[in-house]
Amino acid sequence: MMENKYPMSSVPNYKDVLSAHERIKKQILKTPVLSSSSINKITGASLFFKCENFQKVGAFKFRGASNAVLQLSNEQKIKGVATHSSGNHAAALALAAKKSGVKAYVVMPENAPEIKKKAVKSYGAEITFCKPTLEARENTLQELIKQTGAVFIHPYDNAQIVSGQATAAFELLQEYKDLDIVMAPVGGGGLISGTAIAAKAFNSKIKVFAAEPEMADDAYRSFKSGILLPSVNPNTIADGLRTSLSELTFKIISDKVDNILTVSEESIINAMRLIWERMKIIIEASSAVPLAAVLEHPLIFKDKKTGIILSGGNVDLENLPF
Amino acid sequence: MMENKYPMSSVPNYKDVLSAHERIKKQILKTPVLSSSSINKITGASLFFKCENFQKVGAFKFRGASNAVLQLSNEQKIKGVATHSSGNHAAALALAAKKSGVKAYVVMPENAPEIKKKAVKSYGAEITFCKPTLEARENTLQELIKQTGAVFIHPYDNAQIVSGQATAAFELLQEYKDLDIVMAPVGGGGLISGTAIAAKAFNSKIKVFAAEPEMADDAYRSFKSGILLPSVNPNTIADGLRTSLSELTFKIISDKVDNILTVSEESIINAMRLIWERMKIIIEASSAVPLAAVLEHPLIFKDKKTGIILSGGNVDLENLPF
Repeated sequence: MMENKYPMSSVPNYKDVLSAHERIKKQILKTPVLSSSSINKITGASLFFKCENFQKVGAFKFRGASNAVLQLSNEQKIKGVATHSSGNHAAALALAAKKSGVKAYVVMPENAPEIKKKAVKSYGAEITFCKPTLEARENTLQELIKQTGAVFIHPYDNAQIVSGQATAAFELLQEYKDLDIVMAPVGGGGLISGTAIAAKAFNSKIKVFAAEPEMADDAYRSFKSGILLPSVNPNTIADGLRTSLSELTFKIISDKVDNILTVSEESIINAMRLIWERMKIIIEASSAVPLAAVLEHPLIFKDKKTGIILSGGNVDLENLPF
Repeated sequence: MMENKYPMSSVPNYKDVLSAHERIKKQILKTPVLSSSSINKITGASLFFKCENFQKVGAFKFRGASNAVLQLSNEQKIKGVATHSSGNHAAALALAAKKSGVKAYVVMPENAPEIKKKAVKSYGAEITFCKPTLEARENTLQELIKQTGAVFIHPYDNAQIVSGQATAAFELLQEYKDLDIVMAPVGGGGLISGTAIAAKAFNSKIKVFAAEPEMADDAYRSFKSGILLPSVNPNTIADGLRTSLSELTFKIISDKVDNILTVSEESIINAMRLIWERMKIIIEASSAVPLAAVLEHPLIFKDKKTGIILSGGNVDLENLPF
């Protein structure tokens, strides 16, 4: 029913990543790569942070959303795009659509935080509220698409989205060509899938790790069992990582990711605080998960050059974990 | 009694700034200059933020401290350096001394926050605690200097310190040569004095503004009256700006600063939050004072290019104003 324009089989390749980068590069920010000598000293690692917290809308999601919107046909542009999300993808899709003069429809649960409603509205999207259940969300979206003819842009089960997210690792590797390891957090899997495609094509010797909260370890369990398992009552502070893998992202992760490292909530908070205090930059909890993996598994990273995608910087300043 | 090695009369000039930059450039970070399209949209201004919150020890103070320590004679190096401060200058002097293999003595009130004691200790300085009064602090420092022969490095009433702080604006103007306005916060006046020397020598048409909390407006009152007036019960959230001008900084400010803009506490908090939320970087309240001036006086900055020194990023994450 929620038909995706891009069938699952169309796993994106490196060419798609290069095309995506060409397509979106005028619209996105080329974010900086930062290092911290004090965090390197604490961890014994050599870490290079790709700062997607500085990306437009404050998250890497703007890359994928831009890549999808910029490939709409003229007919599709007239009808608009739609998604259900209360997070960064909705804001990213809204801004990407606005930049192309395209209407964006976003289905959000009526109890979503005011700050998120405001962000999505500020980018000009039309919000349809629904009851806070998965069923209500999907039904509302289907109804909306039926009425408007808008194209559904899934937050990660979409090859164009994955190719767009891949451009963060692509830029990182253009700047730091000799990384031994590249790591990103895994939630729905769009970012880590794109990261793995970009890194393995750039140099097949690069190890690609996903970092995941123990409290939302569906990717870990799926990866180890070989069966796509859903996220069960995920209750992690890393709210961007509570979603489950899709068929597309599970396939890419199974093929290309070397390992998934899970981390405790305490490590996530410690890592988040370390980045705030030592690097003086604001990241959301989800972005701290890879550094938490370095803190929990120091031997893996000792004397290695590791690139980390800091996925986003959207936090509620009135509700910090420290 | 607290004799300063560098007499008040030795107001530094542009040559001193250039020498300071040559001297310290291998030791300091060349901090980035960031802009925010959303803050520019909100303010109607065009703002270029020189990010000294990313500087070593998290503040511009490392520039001046480095410049002073790197000019010690061999005899002075053996005896060490001393200061009284519970803020960024103490940490900066401690690290600059450590990098030159020089001993640093810091007098701190016994009730200083643990986090500040820890920071200064972590850079290897020897702390002498005293009662939390100005008299105790000065007596303790004098006693210490008598015992050790250490050179007193005042946090701002010192030409070498001022020349060092000037290098932040120097770097900013090397990168953005066509600024109309340069602005920095004013507390003791070391940063704004250096900024004014660098900017006016670079291009005498550049307007130099100091930004100051209304709750600690000694610089404003001194500037307007032509008489050096002390800070009276300063109670601003911008804790780095509670100090009074010195004779040296008052002289430079009177000569070279075009105006001092004072701002409310509410504006400081709004500006701080704006930078955290829109730029995803951590700044301390003192650093937000220039943006607060832009928010309170938008017409001055409309359609002008304004460079702002973000002075530091050391905040207590458990005690935020929002």
